[in-house]
Amino acid sequence: MGWLADERGLEKCAANYAALTPLSHLRRAAEVHTDRTALVHGSIRLTYGEYHARVSRLASALAGMGIQPGDVVATLLPNIAAHAEAHFGVPACGAILNAINTRLDLDTVSYILEHGGAKLLLCDTAFLKLAKDACARLEGKAPILVEVCDREAGFSPSGEVLEYEELMARGNPWAPWVMPEDEWESIALNYTSGTTGRPKGVVYHHRGAYLSTYGNAIAWRMQLYPVYLTIVPLFHCNGWCHTWMVPMLGGTVVCCRDITAKAIYAAIADEGVTHFGGAPIVLNTLINAAPEDRRSFDQVVEVFTAGAPPPAATLAAIEPLGFNVTQVYGLTEVYGPATECIWKPEWDETAGEERAALKARTGVAMATLEGAEVHDTHGQPIPRDTVHLGEIAMRGNMVMKGYYKNPEATSEAFRDGWFRSGDIAFQHPDGYIKITDRAKDIIISGGENVSSVEVEGVIAHHPAVSLCAVVAKPDERWGEVPCAFVELKRGREATEEEIIAFARERLAGFKTPKQVIFCELPKTSTGKIQKFELRAVAKLAVTETEDAR
Amino acid sequence: MGWLADERGLEKCAANYAALTPLSHLRRAAEVHTDRTALVHGSIRLTYGEYHARVSRLASALAGMGIQPGDVVATLLPNIAAHAEAHFGVPACGAILNAINTRLDLDTVSYILEHGGAKLLLCDTAFLKLAKDACARLEGKAPILVEVCDREAGFSPSGEVLEYEELMARGNPWAPWVMPEDEWESIALNYTSGTTGRPKGVVYHHRGAYLSTYGNAIAWRMQLYPVYLTIVPLFHCNGWCHTWMVPMLGGTVVCCRDITAKAIYAAIADEGVTHFGGAPIVLNTLINAAPEDRRSFDQVVEVFTAGAPPPAATLAAIEPLGFNVTQVYGLTEVYGPATECIWKPEWDETAGEERAALKARTGVAMATLEGAEVHDTHGQPIPRDTVHLGEIAMRGNMVMKGYYKNPEATSEAFRDGWFRSGDIAFQHPDGYIKITDRAKDIIISGGENVSSVEVEGVIAHHPAVSLCAVVAKPDERWGEVPCAFVELKRGREATEEEIIAFARERLAGFKTPKQVIFCELPKTSTGKIQKFELRAVAKLAVTETEDAR
Ligand SMILES: Nc1ncnc2c1ncn2[C@@H]1O[C@H](COP(=O)(O)OP(=O)(O)OP(=O)(O)O)[C@@H](O)[C@H]1O
Ligand SMILES: Nc1ncnc2c1ncn2[C@@H]1O[C@H](COP(=O)(O)OP(=O)(O)OP(=O)(O)O)[C@@H](O)[C@H]1O
Ligand SMILES: [Mg+2]
Ligand SMILES: [Mg+2]
Repeated sequence: MGWLADERGLEKCAANYAALTPLSHLRRAAEVHTDRTALVHGSIRLTYGEYHARVSRLASALAGMGIQPGDVVATLLPNIAAHAEAHFGVPACGAILNAINTRLDLDTVSYILEHGGAKLLLCDTAFLKLAKDACARLEGKAPILVEVCDREAGFSPSGEVLEYEELMARGNPWAPWVMPEDEWESIALNYTSGTTGRPKGVVYHHRGAYLSTYGNAIAWRMQLYPVYLTIVPLFHCNGWCHTWMVPMLGGTVVCCRDITAKAIYAAIADEGVTHFGGAPIVLNTLINAAPEDRRSFDQVVEVFTAGAPPPAATLAAIEPLGFNVTQVYGLTEVYGPATECIWKPEWDETAGEERAALKARTGVAMATLEGAEVHDTHGQPIPRDTVHLGEIAMRGNMVMKGYYKNPEATSEAFRDGWFRSGDIAFQHPDGYIKITDRAKDIIISGGENVSSVEVEGVIAHHPAVSLCAVVAKPDERWGEVPCAFVELKRGREATEEEIIAFARERLAGFKTPKQVIFCELPKTSTGKIQKFELRAVAKLAVTETEDAR
Repeated sequence: MGWLADERGLEKCAANYAALTPLSHLRRAAEVHTDRTALVHGSIRLTYGEYHARVSRLASALAGMGIQPGDVVATLLPNIAAHAEAHFGVPACGAILNAINTRLDLDTVSYILEHGGAKLLLCDTAFLKLAKDACARLEGKAPILVEVCDREAGFSPSGEVLEYEELMARGNPWAPWVMPEDEWESIALNYTSGTTGRPKGVVYHHRGAYLSTYGNAIAWRMQLYPVYLTIVPLFHCNGWCHTWMVPMLGGTVVCCRDITAKAIYAAIADEGVTHFGGAPIVLNTLINAAPEDRRSFDQVVEVFTAGAPPPAATLAAIEPLGFNVTQVYGLTEVYGPATECIWKPEWDETAGEERAALKARTGVAMATLEGAEVHDTHGQPIPRDTVHLGEIAMRGNMVMKGYYKNPEATSEAFRDGWFRSGDIAFQHPDGYIKITDRAKDIIISGGENVSSVEVEGVIAHHPAVSLCAVVAKPDERWGEVPCAFVELKRGREATEEEIIAFARERLAGFKTPKQVIFCELPKTSTGKIQKFELRAVAKLAVTETEDAR
């Protein structure tokens, strides 16, 4: 190891060591970019000096409410100024931020409050009923409820509980912050989307949150003074950690409470937005905007999209409007995006489908990751031939501490020194990864892998089909067989036999679904289909078609 | 502290923790940017794949020569490909890189070899005699000498010792690297310039070297694929750590062995250089280039300059040529530049002297620093009024581990939790720091501070004076008095009385030098005047002028 012959006097001390934390970025920005605009929400405009003071207020007011270092403070908030403030103010009192998805159902919200053990909940007026109902269900002590009244969105305080600005008034704008002593201390608790089961509580540390700010700035090719629009919800991997990054660059966070084309175009034109992230669906919203909602602008807006590859048609339509789209991929477990489809200059000449296929790649490891590989079942890298499939595995400082109160799931996820994503992919010869499916969604029929995504793609072409999901159904003979769940288009009809026949014409026999069930598909609050529920149904459903494999 | 109620299973493990090290950047670049050009030196062009393989070769060949983790490997090399390779290859075998200033005198080189205890020395053919002579003087065991023959510069191997390519041939291009287990392990040993005395051995760790790559990329506003020209010598704070940064961005390092206007313009035009750093003198070289050495180019080249503020005339001449100049400030002790004169958009409209005065500011803390302040003698921040003076103090992860084999100097430098730079400055109301002098160069006469820089500035205006340095001379009555050392212009004459009279007309009495000594000024190899030598002379020199204060 790299220790010099004489290391006396070369130890850590206050001068040469500071625990890595994103709190440092805001503290520095308040010094260096004091009068620059930090945060915009409607008519609210905070300079870095003011932002810092409000964060100090929040931290000290929370402490005044009895919040102690190590406590969890939850939020049920849209992307509003208070939510950005909480990203610094909660850790600045030593507490851990648990930003809860506001689109979740009552049951899941109360599950998260119970499991996370929040001591205090900052709740938007719009979600007050949800919060109260969720608290009423708790077995443990309910969190103190603080209402955040978003006057910019036309709300008035309900008067039922303490309001955020009253809380802030109790705080001290010059209060010192609780800085971490150890960068491994926890900063955030983020529950996964719950696509594959109960959401899991992913714990982030100050070190990872800090390093992510650099990784993201580099990946997003950001320079000084970016204007960042918050479309990714702050409850989703802390908005991909961007609220923590922007102060490092002296940039501006523009809050977007309602994700409408009108609001996005207005922010781009009026605030000079340069960057935002969001699911591909956001791009469609922009493409399909009503003429009166559109605005013209001069800058090229850099858009990062995750969750699914941006479709060719979407790219073709959005890029001429002044947006440059880059795909990223990640999970709650890796602080949001962790791979990026880094664009190569030699691809500049491509167009149409070819260009879309390149942009549809899942990408390569971002700089802060030690490695992103695709592993076979023995944990060995697969050949880079676009044919072999394996599981995406990642390791490094952007991987979570683990799952809260679930050491078993943690050690299972960290098997053999890699975080196993549960996502199935192949690799291009140049190393670029391309996701094909989730591991849990792969169907193994007679020893052959069947990609649910492939079967879904075929069935989706049937003229009567609106949406389709294919899952494994246990089968005595084949182990598993594909079972399709179909939502029909309004006013259209199709029979199980028709769909199966349609698929059989286009797919190998072992890939053809053996059963088709017509129903509305269960989705998460972020619109992902919850196949684990479909699998439960498929398991119980009696097969009526005979095995025609 | 921010520990959750239940931290079981949330510990460090191979999946979620990696010691921070710049080695990770090159390893990733070899994966992600495999075929992109990494390193250019004359006709040598290495891709990232090749660069990585050569680094593996070097690391394994060094191990084969008996170099063990913790050993010191020194270099006496210009900015050539082998020097960049050593920046990764030496730490990749667990050793510590000691890049020695090639412009140093024999005595200092042998002092450094003795003090640092290098086991092996990579030496350019041009410095072979210097190296041999220095080794001959050593009391301890001399390092193994390996000659690096720069064929691109027309050298042939001397045949006297093992040549670098022979060493490389013994290495294994697939050898695994020794990665640090603890990011506090040492990566480099860099001796200060020796402006204020014997050079001190500054120790860097992997953590700081890694974090510096992000801080520098952000400060330099670098995006993907920069083309970086190595003008700052790699022996100077490891070329400001830039060789470690460029792979993170998939960029290209272009080596510049001889810092001539012709070579710089050629690199800009032929290689598309986008960024370089250098002392203000480099800018003058470009401005005064012969017409046949100039080349035209389209990009705006970002230039970062340190060591002294860029003079107004220089800025006025260089910027229209296609360069944007930013001043940075730092020391060997803080990994090179640590503050930057971050340009504010509202300054865009300024011109001439006003613009130059803004660009002449020393700046504000870079993102990786926890703080840069100006402290009074009690360690308290001075008022930001441009009048009060204090010492620049810095803290954070970009501050060295300490001085090698000198715990006393280390703890003195780290007094009260800050690294004390020894540089005197004031602060503008917006927090921007402006250096006025080195602490050791301040003259305290009758309790009043006299800035040596101010007195020098006045005397420099005397028509016969070419160069001037003012230092403190002990004085019974006043404690200290200013004493001026002057180099006259070729063919010009002036007497001591004339110079003193000239100064007295323009300065307060207590600031006027009491003695003037005509001589050639002693300079470091980087051109800084060694005032500590002048102070020794001043102390001994008999004062002939009477005290006319
Ligand atoms: N660019 C992308 N392309 C394809 N899939 C993506 C992309 N980005 C993210 N995903 C999918 O989203 C998942 C991460 O989502 P998230 O962490 O929000 O929760 P989830 O995995 O949906 O829920 P849970 O873990 O509770 O089942 C990834 O594992 C991957 O399946
Ligand atoms: N932008 C700048 N403006 C003014 N001075 C600068 C600037 N940048 C660097 N310097 C000077 O250079 C010094 C750092 O130089 P370096 O670490 O190479 O060794 P040195 O301080 O000259 O030598 P030694 O420490 O051995 O006396 C700073 O302390 C400062 O005095
Ligand atoms: Mg998941
Ligand atoms: Mg110094």
